[in-house]
Amino acid sequence: MAHINEHYLKLQAGYLFPEIGRRVSKFQKENPNAKIIKMGIGDVTIPLVPSVIRAFHEGVEDLAKIETFKGYGPEQGYDFLREAIAKNEYQDNNIDISADEIFISDGSKCDTGNILEIFDLKNKIAVQDPVYPVYVDSSVMAGRTGNILKNGYFDGLVYLPCTEENSFTPDLPKERVDIIFLCYPNNPTGTTASKEELKKWVDYALDNKSIILYDTAYEAFITEKNVPHSIYEIEGAKKVAMEFRSFSKKAGFTGVRCGLIVIPKELTGYTSTRECKSLHSLWARRHSTKFNGASYPVQKAAAAIYSNEGKKEIKEVINYYMANAKIMRESLTNMGFKVFGGVNAPYVWVKSQESISSWDLFDKFLSTANVVGTPGSGFGPSGEGYFRFSAFASKENVIEAMDRIRKMK
Amino acid sequence: MAHINEHYLKLQAGYLFPEIGRRVSKFQKENPNAKIIKMGIGDVTIPLVPSVIRAFHEGVEDLAKIETFKGYGPEQGYDFLREAIAKNEYQDNNIDISADEIFISDGSKCDTGNILEIFDLKNKIAVQDPVYPVYVDSSVMAGRTGNILKNGYFDGLVYLPCTEENSFTPDLPKERVDIIFLCYPNNPTGTTASKEELKKWVDYALDNKSIILYDTAYEAFITEKNVPHSIYEIEGAKKVAMEFRSFSKKAGFTGVRCGLIVIPKELTGYTSTRECKSLHSLWARRHSTKFNGASYPVQKAAAAIYSNEGKKEIKEVINYYMANAKIMRESLTNMGFKVFGGVNAPYVWVKSQESISSWDLFDKFLSTANVVGTPGSGFGPSGEGYFRFSAFASKENVIEAMDRIRKMK
Repeated sequence: MAHINEHYLKLQAGYLFPEIGRRVSKFQKENPNAKIIKMGIGDVTIPLVPSVIRAFHEGVEDLAKIETFKGYGPEQGYDFLREAIAKNEYQDNNIDISADEIFISDGSKCDTGNILEIFDLKNKIAVQDPVYPVYVDSSVMAGRTGNILKNGYFDGLVYLPCTEENSFTPDLPKERVDIIFLCYPNNPTGTTASKEELKKWVDYALDNKSIILYDTAYEAFITEKNVPHSIYEIEGAKKVAMEFRSFSKKAGFTGVRCGLIVIPKELTGYTSTRECKSLHSLWARRHSTKFNGASYPVQKAAAAIYSNEGKKEIKEVINYYMANAKIMRESLTNMGFKVFGGVNAPYVWVKSQESISSWDLFDKFLSTANVVGTPGSGFGPSGEGYFRFSAFASKENVIEAMDRIRKMK
Repeated sequence: MAHINEHYLKLQAGYLFPEIGRRVSKFQKENPNAKIIKMGIGDVTIPLVPSVIRAFHEGVEDLAKIETFKGYGPEQGYDFLREAIAKNEYQDNNIDISADEIFISDGSKCDTGNILEIFDLKNKIAVQDPVYPVYVDSSVMAGRTGNILKNGYFDGLVYLPCTEENSFTPDLPKERVDIIFLCYPNNPTGTTASKEELKKWVDYALDNKSIILYDTAYEAFITEKNVPHSIYEIEGAKKVAMEFRSFSKKAGFTGVRCGLIVIPKELTGYTSTRECKSLHSLWARRHSTKFNGASYPVQKAAAAIYSNEGKKEIKEVINYYMANAKIMRESLTNMGFKVFGGVNAPYVWVKSQESISSWDLFDKFLSTANVVGTPGSGFGPSGEGYFRFSAFASKENVIEAMDRIRKMK
């Protein structure tokens, strides 16, 4: 008799984004003339830039000719892409990461969802609250947690509340943790951590032989100086941290699929007899056994963002989104909302003025202004009373949405 | 202290294909003038067909324009592809599989490596021997086995020897098993199972409430009538089997990455209290949590193989490879080798005439004929004494390789 993995049954039936979709569909059906503006899901809206499109076509054309045809590629990714990333993302910023410490994948959602496979089930895992749901859900599915508790936390995980009071940079946990997911610029709050804040975590990990899983999918949206783009700007981080990066938001690759993990060669985990083992080797084994490389034309397209032209083009797109974020921040602030994020990230995190729940605010925005955002409580209990707006929209829609919300009040 | 998943340490250091690569490199270095012909790894060599290239470009072009741009797609795949698969692979062959029972992925290696996640660790798993290494290695990594035994088997797995004596169609296991990996046309032996053989397994699974994981990556290479293309040709299979398909070999997508799983809605696993749970729902949860859809242009390209032109074009490519297989079968048979496979699969499974090990035969072919194949023992103990040649090569190279082997003798 084939038994299922019963840990899946611990997950709640209603996931965040499908529930949003359900409510939006219902409203649209009941109000067929309503022009709904969607600023909920963090999906990009601007086409791929010309140099990426050109390289993508070239990659396809390579597969049309016998002389340039490519079959299975290296599971870790093509050297041309790994070298471009090492140089442009790291070495040019005086960070010593080499191409062979980079693993190309089909996206950060897969990487952050799969990475725990190389760690023992008994590790104590810490996550920020609010949090990108994949870290939590994949932990639950693998049996790394108990059941969900009344407060919305899964038993066994250590939650690090990120609140207005601590400027969305959590305190060190009181109990010792072995693996720490950190996401900066943060999804969903759009806030950042200073070098000093990150140093606190790196030092903690060094002291406790813990591993930091640093998700910096939104790094390209940083506009302020002194905000770290990489965990490796912190001394000692190569001994304790992996870094996840994505082309999804940086270059509009949400439908194209490409991401990467940096695993420094010196990064180690421990056996039960406290023997050091290379995490790079373990992930190389996992990656080559259960993954078969990212699509070749996709890797060609990704490498194009590091050409001079590509860099300029994606910068313009990012500036466009960040101009949207500025409009939202200013408009919502003028309306009397307390607003966070939106300076170094494409997300604006809005505090509800009244004692109204995130989902009630969602329904209110939807029904009165026909504007869709994401209820903060969907990302965790500490998100209750907050609301996330995404800057991934047209400027016209952002202005229109802000107008409608203003009139609503 | 971050502890590693120590199950990884049970895996052997030397994997099959890297070891082949190492020996080939060494030989080439020592014999720089040797013109090595590679027929080892099962990687395609012929470019993508014109209609696939055209659709791939169109998919890229869609991402260049705001009107047609696509961000995140449905995790399960676009309807246009799922519907084309359901119609062409199933419904046109009188098999009742609907589009919403199909999950598109970035390849069968990922799918077969990940699928066990939705099953309890305590299930008893059966694999064929010889076997595609991913089924075994991913089971080991997840802690579903003990250590490797002296006979080359992992403790805890049930191996089903496929030998000349049983025509490479294994007997039912003596001990009860919960999950059964079956691969037909078989990799590595190139042999097939009749409908009667498959019925034996479906009936076993029905009787024991077991699940069959049916890998039919090489289905497109079947040339003989009455050889089943799908497990669903067997009555009752929808109650007990998932089916894995791939575009890698069928349409030359090894570097493009696209595959699929069929999970019928009526397929169920059991909780510890013997409650039925839909495996479709469980995999939908896994797929949407840890995967973010296959690349949009790749899905466009995949759908093109179901156009009339695409069908003709890929059929020509398959015929080319199968003509190679025929040359190999006939040549090797004429040389006195016992040869299996190669009629309904692009692999020829050759029995060593002398009592010479697979790896010794590998070295002999490499050093004397400068021809690379795959040692059968690399796929499992029952592969010892066998050798796999792949038809994924140019006709000229196949003829040349056969000539060299003939002269060797």
